[in-house]
Amino acid sequence: MRKVGIGIDIGGTNTQIGFVDEDGKVFLETTMSTLLGETFEEYLEELYNVIETAKAESKEKFDIIGIGVGAPNGNFYKGTIEFAPNLKWKGVIEVTKLMTEKFGIPAVLTNDANAAAIGEMMFGGAKGMNNFIIITLGTGLGSGIVVNGELVYGHDGFAGELGHVIVEKGGRVCGCGRRGCLETYASATGIRRTAFEVIADRNQETLLSSLSYDDITSFKIYEAAQNGDHIAREIFRETGRYLGEALADFVANGSPEAIFLFGGLANAGDLILEPTEKYMEENLLHIFKNKVKLQISQLNEGDAAVVGAAALAWKEFNV
Amino acid sequence: MRKVGIGIDIGGTNTQIGFVDEDGKVFLETTMSTLLGETFEEYLEELYNVIETAKAESKEKFDIIGIGVGAPNGNFYKGTIEFAPNLKWKGVIEVTKLMTEKFGIPAVLTNDANAAAIGEMMFGGAKGMNNFIIITLGTGLGSGIVVNGELVYGHDGFAGELGHVIVEKGGRVCGCGRRGCLETYASATGIRRTAFEVIADRNQETLLSSLSYDDITSFKIYEAAQNGDHIAREIFRETGRYLGEALADFVANGSPEAIFLFGGLANAGDLILEPTEKYMEENLLHIFKNKVKLQISQLNEGDAAVVGAAALAWKEFNV
Repeated sequence: MRKVGIGIDIGGTNTQIGFVDEDGKVFLETTMSTLLGETFEEYLEELYNVIETAKAESKEKFDIIGIGVGAPNGNFYKGTIEFAPNLKWKGVIEVTKLMTEKFGIPAVLTNDANAAAIGEMMFGGAKGMNNFIIITLGTGLGSGIVVNGELVYGHDGFAGELGHVIVEKGGRVCGCGRRGCLETYASATGIRRTAFEVIADRNQETLLSSLSYDDITSFKIYEAAQNGDHIAREIFRETGRYLGEALADFVANGSPEAIFLFGGLANAGDLILEPTEKYMEENLLHIFKNKVKLQISQLNEGDAAVVGAAALAWKEFNV
Repeated sequence: MRKVGIGIDIGGTNTQIGFVDEDGKVFLETTMSTLLGETFEEYLEELYNVIETAKAESKEKFDIIGIGVGAPNGNFYKGTIEFAPNLKWKGVIEVTKLMTEKFGIPAVLTNDANAAAIGEMMFGGAKGMNNFIIITLGTGLGSGIVVNGELVYGHDGFAGELGHVIVEKGGRVCGCGRRGCLETYASATGIRRTAFEVIADRNQETLLSSLSYDDITSFKIYEAAQNGDHIAREIFRETGRYLGEALADFVANGSPEAIFLFGGLANAGDLILEPTEKYMEENLLHIFKNKVKLQISQLNEGDAAVVGAAALAWKEFNV
């Protein structure tokens, strides 16, 4: 029997499921709609059936140590999803309690960025590191912080909201109701906003001038930059400047060994890494200069969320 | 025999020494000049004599569990003081190694703000707390961060430099060579600088207008505010605004249960606490609002450094 943890990543639209062994290898990977059923209990019934079907159809037999769940607004301490704006279940959902009752095995939950941090620590570039940060650059900016070998959950389970430190007083409007949050600059959405500002400011020829706000994406900016478009490169530099300056402050706080960039924008590789590193180093307090490794995550983006969620199960239940 | 840890606080001019029991009560408190001797070894010889003399002259007998040292630029991991600008010993000093050799008992070292954090946790307002921050508002701004019940030292032992996060891009010149660091606004020095800016900006009648930059102190600004001086109150509000905004970002990072203010400026009580809390709450991400306790440290300023240093010994050696 192959010993695995079940990793479940609950997104607004889709739920990804995978059985993950202790080397981070994924088996029986599958997907279902998060929108199935009216209530969370009904969704859970569907989830149970999907997993049982996958097990039944597999030639291999599995010894399941537990379930790890990654979800937006996931609270590790309580095992709940709380008031998640992008999920259809409202209020507080007792996820791990209901899952354990349904599946008869232990379950643990955290938010997606924390799951990525644990995935990086167990199976990625942070193996053996006790102090590091992972920054997830998706629609917003998430973060998972590891200190003394442990995830930082804080007093209430919601620590690590680095996307919502204020990097520009009175700056861009953020979905959280405030202005100037880091994620309004450094994220897939942030780079679109920067693109429009830079294009407007420079008023020069660029491959991007034919694109509407609806059409411009971080990938299209990436393509233009790869084709030598100066404005597109400037957009990445600006994005890296905001991110690098913020990272310098995070270093003064926790002095991590490494910072990993993960997700959409991190796929731009050196285009985002180089300016971020330049501005981080320029803004570091002297004692921290040339010490912090800034790297692209070694997790495979396709299954990182499932692997990270399963890593949490491995960490908690592999005794 | 009374079981104690020896707490030693090494300052630029004076070294404070105290024997501290497990309730934080201080015995045989004494002081010597940090300037004695040419080398650290010679200083250590003097320190040894001071401690042996105090022990010999005491009627009480002590069972010493170990030595805890608080010092600027103290590195917990290595037990060294490294390149401390305010101490006369240059380069890297192997403090704990030399002390253990001289005294024949174990020694441990950290910087002064981290020592204060451990003191607050063992003997002050942070008893039973696993996630909190202490901010020391002296000539500069120091900080000690506790996460999951442990001090945050980071990868290199120098984490917790919250005085050097940038709160105003291109802002005030800082001793670290950069601009806009928090400690240039929120510290005993910072409030003097704010005083001069506010006085210059308002050009109104104030009790402070007769004071030169050499003469103005946080205590004189405090006295003026207590006497109803509007400009002095405005100076505290401005200081609290910078500090409160920065604290809101620290909360997004580690979500602490409480933040303690300690040292010179914290003695102003509500004059600094109220604006700091107001601006912190105004700038918090909604999920953190009305959760974080902002308090004045419960350590007695007179012996807090010694008590904090001894607390470290208690923490490390009381097995």
